[in-house]
Amino acid sequence: MFKKTMLAMVVSGVFLAGCNDDDTREVIKEVEVIKEVEVPRETNEDVTSVKNVILMIGDGMGPQQVGLLEEYARRAPNSTYNASGNETALTKLAQAGQLGLSLNAPFGANGSLVVDSACSASQLATGVAAGSEMIGLDSEGNVVKTILEKAKAQGKATGLVSDTRITHATPAAFAAHQPHRSLEAEIAEELIASGSVDLMLSGGARVFLPSDIKTDEADRQTMADLGAPESVYKKSKRSDDRNLLLEAKNEYGYHLAFDRDQLNSAATDEGTKILGLFANSGMADGIAYSDCKKDNSCTQPSLREMTLKALDILAKDPDGFFLMIEGGQIDWAGHLNDAGWMLHELLKFDEAIAAVYEWVKDRDDTLVVVTADHETGSFGFSYSRNDLPEAQILDGDGMKGREYKPNFNFGALSKLDMLYGQTGTFYDMMDIVSADWDFTNTTGEQWADAINTHSEFKVTAEEAEFIGEREVNDYLVHDHSYLSAQEFPKVNDFKEFYVYGDEIHGDLIGRALAKEQNIVWGTGTHTAAPVPVYVFGPEAITKQFSTMQHHVDIANKMMAALIQE
Amino acid sequence: MFKKTMLAMVVSGVFLAGCNDDDTREVIKEVEVIKEVEVPRETNEDVTSVKNVILMIGDGMGPQQVGLLEEYARRAPNSTYNASGNETALTKLAQAGQLGLSLNAPFGANGSLVVDSACSASQLATGVAAGSEMIGLDSEGNVVKTILEKAKAQGKATGLVSDTRITHATPAAFAAHQPHRSLEAEIAEELIASGSVDLMLSGGARVFLPSDIKTDEADRQTMADLGAPESVYKKSKRSDDRNLLLEAKNEYGYHLAFDRDQLNSAATDEGTKILGLFANSGMADGIAYSDCKKDNSCTQPSLREMTLKALDILAKDPDGFFLMIEGGQIDWAGHLNDAGWMLHELLKFDEAIAAVYEWVKDRDDTLVVVTADHETGSFGFSYSRNDLPEAQILDGDGMKGREYKPNFNFGALSKLDMLYGQTGTFYDMMDIVSADWDFTNTTGEQWADAINTHSEFKVTAEEAEFIGEREVNDYLVHDHSYLSAQEFPKVNDFKEFYVYGDEIHGDLIGRALAKEQNIVWGTGTHTAAPVPVYVFGPEAITKQFSTMQHHVDIANKMMAALIQE
Repeated sequence: MFKKTMLAMVVSGVFLAGCNDDDTREVIKEVEVIKEVEVPRETNEDVTSVKNVILMIGDGMGPQQVGLLEEYARRAPNSTYNASGNETALTKLAQAGQLGLSLNAPFGANGSLVVDSACSASQLATGVAAGSEMIGLDSEGNVVKTILEKAKAQGKATGLVSDTRITHATPAAFAAHQPHRSLEAEIAEELIASGSVDLMLSGGARVFLPSDIKTDEADRQTMADLGAPESVYKKSKRSDDRNLLLEAKNEYGYHLAFDRDQLNSAATDEGTKILGLFANSGMADGIAYSDCKKDNSCTQPSLREMTLKALDILAKDPDGFFLMIEGGQIDWAGHLNDAGWMLHELLKFDEAIAAVYEWVKDRDDTLVVVTADHETGSFGFSYSRNDLPEAQILDGDGMKGREYKPNFNFGALSKLDMLYGQTGTFYDMMDIVSADWDFTNTTGEQWADAINTHSEFKVTAEEAEFIGEREVNDYLVHDHSYLSAQEFPKVNDFKEFYVYGDEIHGDLIGRALAKEQNIVWGTGTHTAAPVPVYVFGPEAITKQFSTMQHHVDIANKMMAALIQE
Repeated sequence: MFKKTMLAMVVSGVFLAGCNDDDTREVIKEVEVIKEVEVPRETNEDVTSVKNVILMIGDGMGPQQVGLLEEYARRAPNSTYNASGNETALTKLAQAGQLGLSLNAPFGANGSLVVDSACSASQLATGVAAGSEMIGLDSEGNVVKTILEKAKAQGKATGLVSDTRITHATPAAFAAHQPHRSLEAEIAEELIASGSVDLMLSGGARVFLPSDIKTDEADRQTMADLGAPESVYKKSKRSDDRNLLLEAKNEYGYHLAFDRDQLNSAATDEGTKILGLFANSGMADGIAYSDCKKDNSCTQPSLREMTLKALDILAKDPDGFFLMIEGGQIDWAGHLNDAGWMLHELLKFDEAIAAVYEWVKDRDDTLVVVTADHETGSFGFSYSRNDLPEAQILDGDGMKGREYKPNFNFGALSKLDMLYGQTGTFYDMMDIVSADWDFTNTTGEQWADAINTHSEFKVTAEEAEFIGEREVNDYLVHDHSYLSAQEFPKVNDFKEFYVYGDEIHGDLIGRALAKEQNIVWGTGTHTAAPVPVYVFGPEAITKQFSTMQHHVDIANKMMAALIQE
């Protein structure tokens, strides 16, 4: 990197030899004196503030998950990146910017070892320690202003985009303040009433709808009149009869959108407020998205499309914007120990990153931060004693007549393509075994059939038998969201880390596939692995991130760059 | 960062107003023209070559392992870093330098998903794709010149330091070329005869000793005369009667050292060749080291002391040096799923990093790269359904009268101190159960007693019962180093990834402790997690590393900086 400026040497005695004027000598003196003055570079090196911040959170996207994406993109024989140089948008961002790592546990001496998404997003949003499962509060339970709220107070536009639910922990923590992440109905009320968020694009309509939406014809007609497909208003998770969508529209001036076409045709004028809810709960999973994308039959907007729309609207604000975009189902796939699904989620998120990178790459007024809230699953490719490689003769001069025969199975690259080839998530497989999720009497045949319907890695009924095993829940807790179940799927090792009741049958599917996938998992919950932080923007800002930081540091660095106090 | 140079603005019309001389106008014109000339910065920004490279490899030190070290250093209530600002040497290095990530699998379209230490070190040493378990060869089996050999060819001094064995995969791959990592006897011959390595400090004397060292009095007297303690020459793994230590001394001019005192008193003149072998096999483990350090009773040099000695000797070479330092037992602890041991290994390695950082921090002629060859164990802290937190009342204004009660156990920070408090490795525990490693008939009491002797996390005999369970080895392979055993310890889940025979009882100890430690493991082998890369040196070099690279890229970046072709 060079700096464009004057060369000191040109103002030499040689050039000035013919000038005898006193004033000129004065000039020469001045020039000599200021040789020691420090000059800012004219590149972006000293730009320490930005107009816009785009924060992208891959929920559960630890280093291991990024590794899966990179190995797939770079080396899967039939990688979908083959046509474009095998470079992910994440790698482009790192090449043009910087990469660091970040610790993410509940911060401070009163914190703990492992974080959940609510606490992690709260810490990323506020820059202070938060408690487990809290939304937008500090560790003592106090309301803390988030970066989004501070941006709004400065007149900037603000947006939240997620492929989960808009009231889910990650987006919620940027614009709501609640003692527990489960209070999604209250979070929905806050989101529309606070005035802090201009744009919300996600799923999760169920907590915006009146409790009787399933049966009340007038309520259903209201939704139909608003242009919502039935899939969006199929049920409610509210306990009152408020229709927050109507309130958002009539009381708070939000434009509403419920499907891809409505979003695409929505106005993008400066100051547009928009609430787009495209699913009753979570949006389409990555496998379903990869599938509908092939023939352009998707009815929901993709994460990429929501991102593009958000940029289109928010960038109109002359004061700048703050935008948070979550790839939220990487985490869901991780909880289920479902590597095929996880790969598709990573691909979906990378598409959105590509949209941001294209938008930002020639700008110097925007900071992009792509990180995760935590790792999910303790995922890894691993080597095994299954299916050992055959001996080979190699030509190399260092072989000394010996056969080449590694002791273990280090995993063929074709497995990356086979993971991509998975046609349904483990949830889809569970739905095949029991549409109403009654797993009390299932057989190995049922599980094998379900797996073999969707996975290119095949299992026998005998190998799948254990997936249906259940046992008494040793950790029964009454009135607990998950642990009140009398019976749990039977996990042998590390069972305490499998906490989500019947969903654990999914994790057992992961075990059945493990040896053929060369894949291992350590947990059905999260780990404390430091997560990658990709940053792009003015260099004086981005270089601060190439270290081992904590998520509260990320928040404070972003705020220092975006918010002029 | 500012650049010291002239201010263009001072040569303005105002200052020159009084000068009417033609030559002065000529000057003004010149000044305007050269405003667009590019000026190099006077900082180290454009230094793209260095005199020295120090490569430090934490074997098995993935992001998760670094996370353990950081959480311990920053937040363990009784952290050994409390007295020094809770900052690891790794973090100091990242703060002063840069941090990136690196993929590490066997490279290229013919590679595989997961790497072993030999292949990984070969790729780090050569910058080309290597095959699994190969030493210093490319993937076709050809001998490839390593960065160490290239440095030597340029007249630089070279060194290898490891707390494992000098013939172990990681150090070997920098200076030997063999078709398989198991050929340690041949590797030893190469290391002393090749002339490429000036300094070797490690364990592993067993492959340097004549086969009959256990019984032949003359051979034993030879070793005693050389000053070796009996622990160093207690047995041989050679099949011939060569004494490579004598050969190293007499034929190749190596000074020999066998204990801490001998190393400390060894000469450090320019050009010194030294072979220090301080253990028959691997050197002291991290727990034993932490223990003997307390009363300064260590008889082996520490990794830090070997590092300091290496710097002392190698830095005398006016042409510069290449030095590789391995913290090799992080990996061994990971294979055994032993988090307490792993923590002590990380502390031991960080001590060596601190020595390097102190030596290098004010220099601009040296590139330091600290990375791992791969992750081991799929390690993580994780949250569980065991021992849920009690409800609390918090004062914060956002609690709205609700109790604070997270749904799960996110792990208390005191567990970090308890991990540090472990007084023996899982190997030590296994030795208690059976000194001669016969685990065919063990009881829960035996395992519980052994665990409770060394761990602050306690288990009952009932909880430990399963550790002794064994089963027929389903993956029997005749004439295989590990898989020829008829019987294996019984692992339930992911069993194919537990490959090292009786050692797996150690991994089962890890399972017994997991729920109290809030720790999970996915495998007894390695994973493909991208690993951290910490770099310090001239900025134009270090900034190249703040990206998602591959280990072959690291090698090529180091060689571009060190080797002038």
